[in-house]
Amino acid sequence: MSDLTTTTTFDDSIFADRESEVRSYSRGWPTVFTTAKGSWLTDINGRRYLDFFGGAGALNYGHNNPAFKRALIDYLENDGITHGLDMNTVAKGEFLQSFTDRILLPRDLDYKVQFPGPTGTNAVESALKLARKVTGRTSIINFTNAFHGMTLGSLSVTGNSMKRAGAGIPLVHATPMPFDNYFDGVVEDFSWFERVLDDSGSGLNRPAAVIVETVQGEGGVNVARPEWLRALADLCTSRDILLIVDDVQMGCGRTGPFFSFEVAGIQPDIITLSKSIGGYGLPMALTLFKRELDVWEPGEHNGTFRGNNPAFVTAKAAVDTYWSDDTLEKETVAKGELIHQAFAGLCDQYPGISTRGRGMAQGLVFEDADKAGKVCSQAFDNGLLAETAGPSDEVVKLLPPLTTTTEELEQGLEILATATRDAVGR
Amino acid sequence: MSDLTTTTTFDDSIFADRESEVRSYSRGWPTVFTTAKGSWLTDINGRRYLDFFGGAGALNYGHNNPAFKRALIDYLENDGITHGLDMNTVAKGEFLQSFTDRILLPRDLDYKVQFPGPTGTNAVESALKLARKVTGRTSIINFTNAFHGMTLGSLSVTGNSMKRAGAGIPLVHATPMPFDNYFDGVVEDFSWFERVLDDSGSGLNRPAAVIVETVQGEGGVNVARPEWLRALADLCTSRDILLIVDDVQMGCGRTGPFFSFEVAGIQPDIITLSKSIGGYGLPMALTLFKRELDVWEPGEHNGTFRGNNPAFVTAKAAVDTYWSDDTLEKETVAKGELIHQAFAGLCDQYPGISTRGRGMAQGLVFEDADKAGKVCSQAFDNGLLAETAGPSDEVVKLLPPLTTTTEELEQGLEILATATRDAVGR
Amino acid sequence: MSDLTTTTTFDDSIFADRESEVRSYSRGWPTVFTTAKGSWLTDINGRRYLDFFGGAGALNYGHNNPAFKRALIDYLENDGITHGLDMNTVAKGEFLQSFTDRILLPRDLDYKVQFPGPTGTNAVESALKLARKVTGRTSIINFTNAFHGMTLGSLSVTGNSMKRAGAGIPLVHATPMPFDNYFDGVVEDFSWFERVLDDSGSGLNRPAAVIVETVQGEGGVNVARPEWLRALADLCTSRDILLIVDDVQMGCGRTGPFFSFEVAGIQPDIITLSKSIGGYGLPMALTLFKRELDVWEPGEHNGTFRGNNPAFVTAKAAVDTYWSDDTLEKETVAKGELIHQAFAGLCDQYPGISTRGRGMAQGLVFEDADKAGKVCSQAFDNGLLAETAGPSDEVVKLLPPLTTTTEELEQGLEILATATRDAVGR
Amino acid sequence: MSDLTTTTTFDDSIFADRESEVRSYSRGWPTVFTTAKGSWLTDINGRRYLDFFGGAGALNYGHNNPAFKRALIDYLENDGITHGLDMNTVAKGEFLQSFTDRILLPRDLDYKVQFPGPTGTNAVESALKLARKVTGRTSIINFTNAFHGMTLGSLSVTGNSMKRAGAGIPLVHATPMPFDNYFDGVVEDFSWFERVLDDSGSGLNRPAAVIVETVQGEGGVNVARPEWLRALADLCTSRDILLIVDDVQMGCGRTGPFFSFEVAGIQPDIITLSKSIGGYGLPMALTLFKRELDVWEPGEHNGTFRGNNPAFVTAKAAVDTYWSDDTLEKETVAKGELIHQAFAGLCDQYPGISTRGRGMAQGLVFEDADKAGKVCSQAFDNGLLAETAGPSDEVVKLLPPLTTTTEELEQGLEILATATRDAVGR
Repeated sequence: MSDLTTTTTFDDSIFADRESEVRSYSRGWPTVFTTAKGSWLTDINGRRYLDFFGGAGALNYGHNNPAFKRALIDYLENDGITHGLDMNTVAKGEFLQSFTDRILLPRDLDYKVQFPGPTGTNAVESALKLARKVTGRTSIINFTNAFHGMTLGSLSVTGNSMKRAGAGIPLVHATPMPFDNYFDGVVEDFSWFERVLDDSGSGLNRPAAVIVETVQGEGGVNVARPEWLRALADLCTSRDILLIVDDVQMGCGRTGPFFSFEVAGIQPDIITLSKSIGGYGLPMALTLFKRELDVWEPGEHNGTFRGNNPAFVTAKAAVDTYWSDDTLEKETVAKGELIHQAFAGLCDQYPGISTRGRGMAQGLVFEDADKAGKVCSQAFDNGLLAETAGPSDEVVKLLPPLTTTTEELEQGLEILATATRDAVGR
Repeated sequence: MSDLTTTTTFDDSIFADRESEVRSYSRGWPTVFTTAKGSWLTDINGRRYLDFFGGAGALNYGHNNPAFKRALIDYLENDGITHGLDMNTVAKGEFLQSFTDRILLPRDLDYKVQFPGPTGTNAVESALKLARKVTGRTSIINFTNAFHGMTLGSLSVTGNSMKRAGAGIPLVHATPMPFDNYFDGVVEDFSWFERVLDDSGSGLNRPAAVIVETVQGEGGVNVARPEWLRALADLCTSRDILLIVDDVQMGCGRTGPFFSFEVAGIQPDIITLSKSIGGYGLPMALTLFKRELDVWEPGEHNGTFRGNNPAFVTAKAAVDTYWSDDTLEKETVAKGELIHQAFAGLCDQYPGISTRGRGMAQGLVFEDADKAGKVCSQAFDNGLLAETAGPSDEVVKLLPPLTTTTEELEQGLEILATATRDAVGR
Repeated sequence: MSDLTTTTTFDDSIFADRESEVRSYSRGWPTVFTTAKGSWLTDINGRRYLDFFGGAGALNYGHNNPAFKRALIDYLENDGITHGLDMNTVAKGEFLQSFTDRILLPRDLDYKVQFPGPTGTNAVESALKLARKVTGRTSIINFTNAFHGMTLGSLSVTGNSMKRAGAGIPLVHATPMPFDNYFDGVVEDFSWFERVLDDSGSGLNRPAAVIVETVQGEGGVNVARPEWLRALADLCTSRDILLIVDDVQMGCGRTGPFFSFEVAGIQPDIITLSKSIGGYGLPMALTLFKRELDVWEPGEHNGTFRGNNPAFVTAKAAVDTYWSDDTLEKETVAKGELIHQAFAGLCDQYPGISTRGRGMAQGLVFEDADKAGKVCSQAFDNGLLAETAGPSDEVVKLLPPLTTTTEELEQGLEILATATRDAVGR
Repeated sequence: MSDLTTTTTFDDSIFADRESEVRSYSRGWPTVFTTAKGSWLTDINGRRYLDFFGGAGALNYGHNNPAFKRALIDYLENDGITHGLDMNTVAKGEFLQSFTDRILLPRDLDYKVQFPGPTGTNAVESALKLARKVTGRTSIINFTNAFHGMTLGSLSVTGNSMKRAGAGIPLVHATPMPFDNYFDGVVEDFSWFERVLDDSGSGLNRPAAVIVETVQGEGGVNVARPEWLRALADLCTSRDILLIVDDVQMGCGRTGPFFSFEVAGIQPDIITLSKSIGGYGLPMALTLFKRELDVWEPGEHNGTFRGNNPAFVTAKAAVDTYWSDDTLEKETVAKGELIHQAFAGLCDQYPGISTRGRGMAQGLVFEDADKAGKVCSQAFDNGLLAETAGPSDEVVKLLPPLTTTTEELEQGLEILATATRDAVGR
């Protein structure tokens, strides 16, 4: 492996020839990656890339974080349980203990923890199932430009029309409502949602739950204001509707605090976590819910890889390393501000762009969507990974590892500034 | 980790207190496991258990197989890419090459490979979506006592009523047909399915696809005869219906050959693989389909953990180690026969039991379902892990690692023989 | 109107030019009808046609039955309420009284009566809604080749694939089971239905209700044996599933007794009636259900024309005239036998045909479906109306008015015999 | 019948004892009606009631209109075809000719005519089916407080939550949008609908059609402005979505012109008519659609009573009598203004009430919904029939026969004025 850059045992054409046309990132970043560390990836030619993409939010602590790597390798060396379904294991017990002590209790959140399968969509599916079981209702409220996953239940609450079409069946049981600021502040928030909920003749099926992201990443870095989130939580409480916060991408410190909804001071009924919860980029997901909602029958929801114990080891290491105090949270806020300032500067300088975000989830929005694509393409050529988001791919979305240094951030922002200037300037 | 049996940092009550009521295996096997190797697990008290459960089919090559362990740890030590979505990586390229050279080409199977997300249900969901997209139809034919997963699409083609009820919405778009031998051989195979397919007045929605397991594991080790599978494949071909073989549990050599359908000489249109494909118990899944069916748009189906590169490393190692020749296949058939003989002997000896299975997927069926539970419970007390299956949990289902030695097999079968004698004897 | 055969105020081309392509009977019978009486229609050219089609079952008492005509015209002359929704009217009260006294009480059937809107599909929709409301379940069992109507709920339990496709959405919530004799007696009755009902792993959603026709008219005059109907009723009772008999076409004496299920001695939970219930061919329908199932909220199901009072007047007249004793029932059985004998004679004489039916619902089944169409076409040319039925339109279906005289029957059967000979003979 | 007020052959208790609990109007108007003429009904005690309810819109030409009565009785006396499915008959041909010559051609509307079954919900179901077939899409946009019927397809686009719950299955495939003025003019019209249609990430399934009433009767006499309707039509055209105007209640002159949408100058793609189209209160319905949308297969939608020929006779008489010139239209507008002035006067006089409507569909809206019920109850006691509408039954809705004289109108309005004064006055 040490000589990855020199010899491999496969023919480069194998990706195009053998892998399905469904592949996507490999098209925009047409190289073969070998190794990675912190905020950097290296490709087969020895070229290094600064990673502002961050595994789509799965690499908040960077690639192959040395603080967890030793624990993981030690665990493997010692033949710790690798695959455990929902059997009790030391790795799971230690994770649960750390998660309880460092995440839940300090935030006064007494949630039960479900291991629903190791991916975000498993967590969302289990959340929807539980909400329906608890309430006896079928309908879900989602929001414009939401993204919750690709399996059928999650897809039905996802906004993107191309991805929805992939279902091949009509996606029903969900009704989209306008996300915060959908009408650019012109229309009073919730006027539509509140009205149809309370009008017995509105034709809206009474919902089991509302599912919301506090910041919509895939949807284009759309940020819900704390007051909007509070109003949403109040609305749900008063109408006896469960509130699900999908924190798969924005949780684990992405916006600053561990849970993205902490900024609003709310306590959702159900929370989904995945992506960075495993710490090391290994598949893992959690569904959290208020104790009184734990009405599952044993085995009513399951999954072969719900006990991915190596991920429990790195998840515990991540919690212990980064969430024993508020250092990371403060740094994330500060670095987010640094990105924001850089982007705001570009917006002042060039027409047709704007910026939005929270913490280290930041977006640069192009009126001309093509230019967002061009910026990412040029950035890649200059050694930076960043992807577009939004319904028309009009937003350059940054999710750098939270552990990215200020110098790295500045280096990457410089590349983006150049690319932006070339795309929209003069 | 070396002292796992003596000290831990969590309180044992944390599982019952913090983990959701949905947990199941930990109820039947009430201990805390620490390490595992080959066919053996060790618990926190130092007690060892022979594993005839095999991670529900995810551990065909045993726990922490030493042949793969070094490759995995080397990869991690060298900071190989851990999390890669569908970016091209060396680990993925090498896996694809080995899988093509050792699995696909020798079997004359020119399938495209999709990485649909790292679990079986991701693979099934993507298979159903693709079948619907290709055909423009919505309806799927599944079989009695099928099991395909817990997300909404997979759940709709799963038989178990308790698990279906967990959906909280009516599960539609699937119609169950009788699996092979559902009527104990009295009724001609396919008489119902063929008839309603061809009767334009039958009320059956014209299906996009049939999804079938060649041996239903969760359903109770129900074995489809090769001639039934061939007839099913012929029926699908002649009526222009896609045939999906869900080989998540029975693939990767469980029944002898790499693909379980090889025994029937058929070529399904779509195949799902997961569980043991990663080799080491790490989350990984594949969806394979005929080249002409690859109509996906880039990104039309995706998933954060679809590129779990450490699993690609062990998957390649597994393919290279075990599938360069037919040694494993032959041993699996022989060991399966050994289990079968032992079970057949019990059936001769005691009333109310029968046996069925293929390769190293073998079941001991109890007329009185409670007794199957008692056998597994006593087996656990005597140091053996085995689980029940079937609609009434009436089958003791064995999925031991294929690498289990003859001595280990005999040791475990002896425990089961005793437990069976105590349950049904005299 | 007296000179209908000589002058009209419209251009003959108006039907083809203005009426939708959905029209069907007018294509097979390309003339313009003016008047009708008993079993005869007259067209604009003064040509007379013997009617063995009987308004698809809506004209059991013949066209413009003189016994009801006077009551109807008197009612209209006296300005009796025409349109009454569900207001109490004399016409409704008198119908209810007669229906109770002459139909329900003598048969020991204490059903509540709902006026669900004036068509069969209204009755079926209300029956399905009620069954779902009572049981809290969504799924319905229907049978192969069933026909229950064209609105979305009724269509979902209808078999015909062309009609189902017209829905434009996937029709779900219903699972078809084999109707009696679907396998030509080879397969034991109910083996499939019973088995999947009782197998908790079968994947069959637990049904709210079974909906069945005792003789499937549109489906091809398929006759369920009394013992099959009894077994079905027993199965429903023992599994707590509601039994709906759709007697829209086979009720009102078509098979002999007023309700077609009387032959089996069963008491369905819910019954639908329409077509001939109004007596005079006027739109009217009833949904009957056991008293304890009457859980409707006021107005929970409604319909503008549910109180078609002129039809109540003729419905009462029909009940009073024909159902005060068993004369009609006996005559229907006798005339049915007459048709059967004639058809049996043809079957003896010619290859490739067979016959089936009950009472005055009789079918002549052609192995070569085209020949059934030819028979009907030639019959029309010779002054007889008869239509085809069955999934391939392979059955010449007879539903003559029950009031057709023996001479008329013989006259019509002669025409059919000639047409059959020309189609299949030699 | 002449002595209806003195003798009947039924026991008064039969309604409560035998008719389903679903009955509704008979609860608010607890008497038994015998005869009716023009705007008056008479009950069994000889008491007369002025009818401002108008058969829920089915009696635009009054009860038993003498101009049609003779034609109807003559037709019956002469044994004209009563029941004709979609066979060509003189009655149908003459109706089609008159409808073409007097309704369609003068308005430059070249629609094909479908007879979808004799009720409004048949027409709506066929409209939805056709829209889905033409577009290949499944989703429908409906509006808050819409009412379209009680069969499953129509119910899914209806707003009322109690009626929706009666379905017993989740009603899907429809998304409600705000009807005109839903936000009291505060929110810009269409801001929500236009936005989600054009946002490919909104999660809204691309609709096959929009279904709208120009004035929502059951929904509470909510009036869409002509400019809103035009904007809706433009939106549909520009996005290739079919526009269905459900004119079942507001068509046939209720708001003045024959079609209620004429005021907006639009040409819907599909129109549904029923209720007053038959003229005499007999069941009849039409589905009209642009010629190029007539993609039905023969028999793809059908219905036993789609050829209710006596209704064709009175329908033709109604068209000939009332739609040869614009007299009725002008009178309707004038009488509507008379009602409006009376209601406006009440609103000036008393607090907590307001009024809205168009033509002779007028509503008096009570802030305190109970008072609307009290007004109707007192009106009944004083010899006037009027019903409430709206999601909380907060609107006294008037749909008097268009043939009601000015004196009758004034008489009825006086009764309502008194009842209103007693309910809200002082």
